[in-house]
Amino acid sequence: MAGRVFFSVSMSLDGYVAPEPVTTVDDIFAPENRDDPEVRRWMGQWMELQQWIFPLRFFRENLKFGPGGEEGVADDIARETFERTGASVMGRRMFDLGERSWPEEAPFHTPVFVVTHRGRDPWERPGGTTFHFVTDGIEAALDRAREAAGDRDVRLAGGGTTILRYVNAGLVDEFTVAVSPVLFGAGTRLFEGVDASRVALEPIRSEPSSRTTHLTYAVHRR
Amino acid sequence: MAGRVFFSVSMSLDGYVAPEPVTTVDDIFAPENRDDPEVRRWMGQWMELQQWIFPLRFFRENLKFGPGGEEGVADDIARETFERTGASVMGRRMFDLGERSWPEEAPFHTPVFVVTHRGRDPWERPGGTTFHFVTDGIEAALDRAREAAGDRDVRLAGGGTTILRYVNAGLVDEFTVAVSPVLFGAGTRLFEGVDASRVALEPIRSEPSSRTTHLTYAVHRR
Repeated sequence: MAGRVFFSVSMSLDGYVAPEPVTTVDDIFAPENRDDPEVRRWMGQWMELQQWIFPLRFFRENLKFGPGGEEGVADDIARETFERTGASVMGRRMFDLGERSWPEEAPFHTPVFVVTHRGRDPWERPGGTTFHFVTDGIEAALDRAREAAGDRDVRLAGGGTTILRYVNAGLVDEFTVAVSPVLFGAGTRLFEGVDASRVALEPIRSEPSSRTTHLTYAVHRR
Repeated sequence: MAGRVFFSVSMSLDGYVAPEPVTTVDDIFAPENRDDPEVRRWMGQWMELQQWIFPLRFFRENLKFGPGGEEGVADDIARETFERTGASVMGRRMFDLGERSWPEEAPFHTPVFVVTHRGRDPWERPGGTTFHFVTDGIEAALDRAREAAGDRDVRLAGGGTTILRYVNAGLVDEFTVAVSPVLFGAGTRLFEGVDASRVALEPIRSEPSSRTTHLTYAVHRR
């Protein structure tokens, strides 16, 4: 059986998957911008959104932060999400941000297909992550990811805009949202512009963990 | 100990507590508008949002629909929400809609304080619901509700705009959101305009039931 296409993101209770972009500087990861108030605001909000992930044993393992970390429901979910993923797809903006912030050994450890208008040779990282740049659209990127994933699943890694393009194209089988206990009030909304008249959700699982609740839905066409 | 101030609403996964308003007719509950396509769209979305409530034993009891109905987590939550409520506060638009749609015996069975600019004599319904019209602001309405509730809690019954005014004024102690498996894409967002820099959430409970997940948070000032 072919793999499934899914995404798994952290979402604020008011529906955001990313804080409002920083307008003061171009590169929020440049060391000289570290004390910019807007950069601090962005990083603070992003940390709150992802706060359930950092203490996990899996997170520490995957980034080689050493032993220790919390086990339990959230750790199991993070680990299963990683293990089911045979290839990832991401948008160009997420790649641009990540290129400046991922460690040398990027945390994917699989092929990653970047949807972009600018061609570029594959970029191979230590530890099994290779970024491939796909210039002929979201369906072509997904086809290549499916092929690379084999029996495993394809993860739409983000960002929110790219995920939504796949949702509206009817190409997503299921997804998990970890609802974080935070309100942003502004930023990138996961479902802004969703074709609500065509997308139906079937609740599959709801798993509370200590800092969040993991809601999983199958996606159907209405 | 004085009662707590809370709200309990159903929210779509993309953050809406009401469908996009109907623009074709003024009164969506008038029988002659029943077949208006926009009215049908609104009612259909609203039913999807609230779909977890209708099968419950408590819902049937409270509206005198007769015996039967589902028991379990969702029924317990609906019943506890009702029983803890000593008085309710609602906005004028919610009252206007409800006035045309609640049954003769309105489902509150307590005093209800309506925040409005138009004074009106109290409106007493059979079964213990009396609507009081408060023209001197949200704090005055809450004060009167607290007094009427005694040791029980005050429920902010809606709509979304009124609830958010209380949240931003720092007057809400806790709330429960039942996340419904539906996307609206447009409508009234619960947290649109929230003062995110001042509102902090503490997750208190997360209870999955068969059709939704009930997320409860305490509200703190940052």
